[in-house]
Amino acid sequence: MDNNGRKRVSAYRVGFLGPQGTYSHEVALRLFDDTALLQPYISIDTAIRAVASGEIAECVVPIENSLEGSVNVTLDTLAHDVELLISREIVMPVRHNLLAREVGRSVRRILSHPQALAQCRRTLNRLYPQAESLPVDSTAEAARRVAQGESGLAAIGSRNAAALYGLEIIAADIQDTASNCTRFVTLRVRAADSGLAGPWKTSIVCQIDGSKPGSLYRILAEFAERDVNLTKIESRPARTGLGDYLFFLDMEGGIGEPRIRQALTAVEKQSRWFKNLGSYVVVAWEA
Amino acid sequence: MDNNGRKRVSAYRVGFLGPQGTYSHEVALRLFDDTALLQPYISIDTAIRAVASGEIAECVVPIENSLEGSVNVTLDTLAHDVELLISREIVMPVRHNLLAREVGRSVRRILSHPQALAQCRRTLNRLYPQAESLPVDSTAEAARRVAQGESGLAAIGSRNAAALYGLEIIAADIQDTASNCTRFVTLRVRAADSGLAGPWKTSIVCQIDGSKPGSLYRILAEFAERDVNLTKIESRPARTGLGDYLFFLDMEGGIGEPRIRQALTAVEKQSRWFKNLGSYVVVAWEA
Repeated sequence: MDNNGRKRVSAYRVGFLGPQGTYSHEVALRLFDDTALLQPYISIDTAIRAVASGEIAECVVPIENSLEGSVNVTLDTLAHDVELLISREIVMPVRHNLLAREVGRSVRRILSHPQALAQCRRTLNRLYPQAESLPVDSTAEAARRVAQGESGLAAIGSRNAAALYGLEIIAADIQDTASNCTRFVTLRVRAADSGLAGPWKTSIVCQIDGSKPGSLYRILAEFAERDVNLTKIESRPARTGLGDYLFFLDMEGGIGEPRIRQALTAVEKQSRWFKNLGSYVVVAWEA
Repeated sequence: MDNNGRKRVSAYRVGFLGPQGTYSHEVALRLFDDTALLQPYISIDTAIRAVASGEIAECVVPIENSLEGSVNVTLDTLAHDVELLISREIVMPVRHNLLAREVGRSVRRILSHPQALAQCRRTLNRLYPQAESLPVDSTAEAARRVAQGESGLAAIGSRNAAALYGLEIIAADIQDTASNCTRFVTLRVRAADSGLAGPWKTSIVCQIDGSKPGSLYRILAEFAERDVNLTKIESRPARTGLGDYLFFLDMEGGIGEPRIRQALTAVEKQSRWFKNLGSYVVVAWEA
């Protein structure tokens, strides 16, 4: 009880890449109920660091897109800067739209998050070959600026962002391919509750001794021999020099399964550096 | 001879990511002599496409950085959009500086290419925790805008860019680690002259049948068995759906060597899709 006799509620704080109206916001609304306090952050890495510092309990961040690949800042922050675990994953089908203040005006400049710009590059080259791209921090930030800015500006963003910022959709579904999906994860300090119904996945990151991809071959053998299905392999710079890589590996199955535990133990033994990024539940996106 | 009796010179045109003063420009000046006409392009993919369309003979583009990893637009354009070959590679040590119109003013906003912003993220968070990042098309474009813009702006760029745009260096060597290098390649239609003195490297991109990293294990075996040293493995989205990957592989040795030819033939047989990105000479950076 506080001084005024009200019950003190300590809300479950969840960070997302803001402002309101981003795709991360949409995912956060799906994954958390009304008891969670959703809190926007200005960048992916500040949201992740806020979980690590205890400012918030959890965050929702994009980790991979079907056209653009990994969200490097998410991978790099997880590997280098914080000790957090993935607790859930969800894959969202992305529908990009071009938003402007009025229909029928010329488009001189298109604002959006660099990944959204990249995901629509070919379509926009065709529709607006003269328009200049301007990368900004988020799709919603792009919509906000277009709503406030001069004419001739357009933003790539969601229908939700159009509604939120009072913009018109001047071109719908402008992503380069129909199969554009983004994979989001939630991050927190504690491991996911192992009693939850699956499917489960597990992610690790390791640096292999000698940093030669020849040793990657031996690492992959540990999974192949145990019939562990890897769903992703991604190399990222180890930041110790060109040619030194970290490998991010995602696999089907949770740490509750002996073959996963055994494979991870074997890989850790062969690694110069190893980090378990957690076992987590795959949540289905329901339309 | 043209109508005025002048000798008609068809200059060897070489594209780079402009404007003047970018790191790509610096590399182009090293790799080509005075007879080449260096031509700036507004983006990496327009420079690459200009070679494919025959507008220019060759281009210089960044392909990988020791902190940030692959330059995705370069890999994706090479894989999906053009038929070009790598002819040379050179690794440049990157020295980033913070450039502003005057020393001693507060810095509210820092402009640069997204990779340069990412490469200095930690140092800038420490030095200017309140400053906002603004991604622009190139480091030189950032310098140009700072030179023309209001006070409170700063750009991440080279010493060369500072000189070219009349800016002060307010913080030197702001990259997050001392070992920051960028690997550039030149691209053209013709293969590199096989008579050139090495060392040589070869790059390929393939999509593996089934798209399961279990098949990557078998691909890596083809190189391991022939003692071919892979210097890089990178997965990128195949753009056919989340979980479908292309693998970019770089190896030591040129197509002139039988073991390289045999390994590539074996890998091509096991691939759903395969593209040879060329054998090329590694040029040393001389300080």
